[in-house]
Amino acid sequence: MSFDAFAPAHLIAARVRQGELSAEAVTSAYLDRIARLNPALNAYTDVTADRALAQARGIDAARARGEALGPLAGVPFAAKNLFDITGLPTRAGSKINRERAPSARDAVLIERLSAAGAVLLGGLNMGEYAYDFTGENAHDGACRNPHDLMRMAGGSSSGSGSATAAGLAPLSLGSDTNGSIRVPSSLCGIFGLKPTYGRLPRTRSFPFCDSLDHLGPFARNVTDLALAYDALQGHDAHDLSCAPSPVEPVSADLSQGVGGLRVAIAGGHFSTEGMPEAGEAVARVAEALGADRVVDIEGAAIARAAAFLITNAESATFHLDRLRARAGDFDPDTRDRFLAGAMLPAAWYVQAQRARRWFHDRMMQLFDEVDLIIAPATPCPAPEIGQRTLQLRGEAVPLRPNLGLFTQPISCIGLPVAAVPVFGAGMPIGVQLIAAPWREDICLRAAYALEQAGCVEARAPGALK
Amino acid sequence: MSFDAFAPAHLIAARVRQGELSAEAVTSAYLDRIARLNPALNAYTDVTADRALAQARGIDAARARGEALGPLAGVPFAAKNLFDITGLPTRAGSKINRERAPSARDAVLIERLSAAGAVLLGGLNMGEYAYDFTGENAHDGACRNPHDLMRMAGGSSSGSGSATAAGLAPLSLGSDTNGSIRVPSSLCGIFGLKPTYGRLPRTRSFPFCDSLDHLGPFARNVTDLALAYDALQGHDAHDLSCAPSPVEPVSADLSQGVGGLRVAIAGGHFSTEGMPEAGEAVARVAEALGADRVVDIEGAAIARAAAFLITNAESATFHLDRLRARAGDFDPDTRDRFLAGAMLPAAWYVQAQRARRWFHDRMMQLFDEVDLIIAPATPCPAPEIGQRTLQLRGEAVPLRPNLGLFTQPISCIGLPVAAVPVFGAGMPIGVQLIAAPWREDICLRAAYALEQAGCVEARAPGALK
Repeated sequence: MSFDAFAPAHLIAARVRQGELSAEAVTSAYLDRIARLNPALNAYTDVTADRALAQARGIDAARARGEALGPLAGVPFAAKNLFDITGLPTRAGSKINRERAPSARDAVLIERLSAAGAVLLGGLNMGEYAYDFTGENAHDGACRNPHDLMRMAGGSSSGSGSATAAGLAPLSLGSDTNGSIRVPSSLCGIFGLKPTYGRLPRTRSFPFCDSLDHLGPFARNVTDLALAYDALQGHDAHDLSCAPSPVEPVSADLSQGVGGLRVAIAGGHFSTEGMPEAGEAVARVAEALGADRVVDIEGAAIARAAAFLITNAESATFHLDRLRARAGDFDPDTRDRFLAGAMLPAAWYVQAQRARRWFHDRMMQLFDEVDLIIAPATPCPAPEIGQRTLQLRGEAVPLRPNLGLFTQPISCIGLPVAAVPVFGAGMPIGVQLIAAPWREDICLRAAYALEQAGCVEARAPGALK
Repeated sequence: MSFDAFAPAHLIAARVRQGELSAEAVTSAYLDRIARLNPALNAYTDVTADRALAQARGIDAARARGEALGPLAGVPFAAKNLFDITGLPTRAGSKINRERAPSARDAVLIERLSAAGAVLLGGLNMGEYAYDFTGENAHDGACRNPHDLMRMAGGSSSGSGSATAAGLAPLSLGSDTNGSIRVPSSLCGIFGLKPTYGRLPRTRSFPFCDSLDHLGPFARNVTDLALAYDALQGHDAHDLSCAPSPVEPVSADLSQGVGGLRVAIAGGHFSTEGMPEAGEAVARVAEALGADRVVDIEGAAIARAAAFLITNAESATFHLDRLRARAGDFDPDTRDRFLAGAMLPAAWYVQAQRARRWFHDRMMQLFDEVDLIIAPATPCPAPEIGQRTLQLRGEAVPLRPNLGLFTQPISCIGLPVAAVPVFGAGMPIGVQLIAAPWREDICLRAAYALEQAGCVEARAPGALK
């Protein structure tokens, strides 16, 4: 039996269903690969080997009994360590949370992928309490980019980006509050979906900022991304932000194409002037999708400021007791952000929520005229680990917040986005495909069209093959 | 032609339609009465006599031409001076706002009553920027209670309560953020409806606290209250809080009765221990409605605290520029509240919004078991003007905030409430009839049943007849 760590999830599932591969063999092969490569990548923080092998054997036994298998039967996956995993404390990238009791039950999204036949391999590294765009972590060490181990994986879903790009799992789960799915997708050169706010339930995941937290999947191709998304959909009453929206599967309709869609390039705040890699990636995607206009997304900088304030205030409120009692146990980089949040005046937060609603209404008007908006995912490809500043439009700015320059205004109002990877001469960089609320189908159809056209793809990292 | 200043609005409309009364004569009579009594009551701050007479003549002319007249044809009404009135600056009880340009258009709710044939007599006194339960006002002077001119009318819709109780208008409009419709209803002995949050549009009214502001009508009988409410209903896209709910008229179904309704008395926070007038009023209403249980509304004190914080933070944010530039032009009592709000930490506001959602969810569970909840509207009948403290359960507490003791937790989560007046030996006091969201019909049917049973009524003030 041949093992290709970069095989698409849907092909793994097909071969498992057809009996060409056993789920156990697939799982074992990934576990071996994790054991071999993870020390260099630092993508996994927990490996649930026994559970994975037991589940895989159960799938093989079910097949032997002639039972129908799920659409992701035997497909390994892993989850950012803010998702509850039965038997593990949900560390959420922190030191403090390691003292929590082991979780009694998986997060809803892990349960849903498992119900579809996917096999959980473990928990993934992340920036502390998700307040991060770099993938650096004072407690677990920096997560590394599989395309260049000296570079950042991006955060806060660093392990999700790194493990998926490195072939340590064909699928993974992450969260995105200001860009934490899209930034690592961009830096690691894979596909990520940040669905509409309220689409996927966050039940039994560790929160960051209630108003802005989204969960979503990563994959190395669009078919897998859509299959995972379909398996994840559905209301859950325990997450009050989760909309009681119908399940709207998209994976069967990816090949519909983008004919008839009005596609625009985001201008203004999203200009890639002075960002050659981002500019080239956007231009390639725009050409392939036939984008025929540039729209100036007025108010995006205001929306970004609002997202900063809302994140800062809500997360500081949530962590206030921990900050008071154990400030020294925080990652210094996140601690200082939380402390600042604890001192914000309420008036700023109230204004930020108003600005957010204002920007939402403006964007809804824009979606009367366009169906899809193309924007860069990050201003640059993966920076080096330890890098603290970024040259942005001729100015040295702090790196950490500015990796989210292009993602923050979008999640601020909960729009669905697919991040798609473009490989130029060197490191990959991502592009955002942004649609109106509840139109994940448009994001994914456009991503699929780009993939079919050879414009976007996830490449196996040369050094790790 | 006989003129009865306390005639029900629906009878005035019927007589105008039948040609027994001219709208002009009705309007003139009310204008005369305002000229005579308002100097003592201080309920009106603006009288729109010319406009009123012109509109009344128009109604009479329409009738003469055989046109159909609206359900409130020729019925005078007045509006708290935070509603835009064409040609007047919207003062909202403040000194500062008097410098505003005259409004170019009436508030939506004034337009709707006018479209039903009602005739606007003018703008009504109120607590500055609606941040008040007393009806005292440093700029316009205290509004007086028609049942005892030395006593408060209650706030912040003081003029609405006073004018309606005094027969200076059969109907009026007010606003309620923490109790500003229900407190003056209680103190002045009339009926008031605070509809579900989002039911009536606030377009072209001066805001106080976006998360909690409600508008609603006052009347001296339930039929009039329901007629006004029906005329006010309907979505307006300019108020983002206004739900796109269907118009659900209730005035035709008031006599359905309350048979089959599960009626409970609110306990715990709403206990009337040590409040003889409130206790007696609740007991009378409970007996007449056949309330068969007491429900302890756990979390009501938390909800009240949340309402305090949300009101304080949002209103301070809204007034921040005015506070910075012109603190000396505020009413000292409200200025100090706004200044405190400007210094609240964001964490408190975020927690307050969370507590509000938590209390909402608890109450929704309670409404699985009960249809109507009876609670006192105020802890006491109208205090004397200038009174600063209140004896509450044996303790002297500040009067100003504690007039809202029983109203704040209810508007905090946007529940519909009808306030109904009970007259004992002395001054009147109100009782809240509280239902689940969007069930104004239950509140009003219960109020009507109580009125039919002679349990609640608005009495003409002896001294003003």
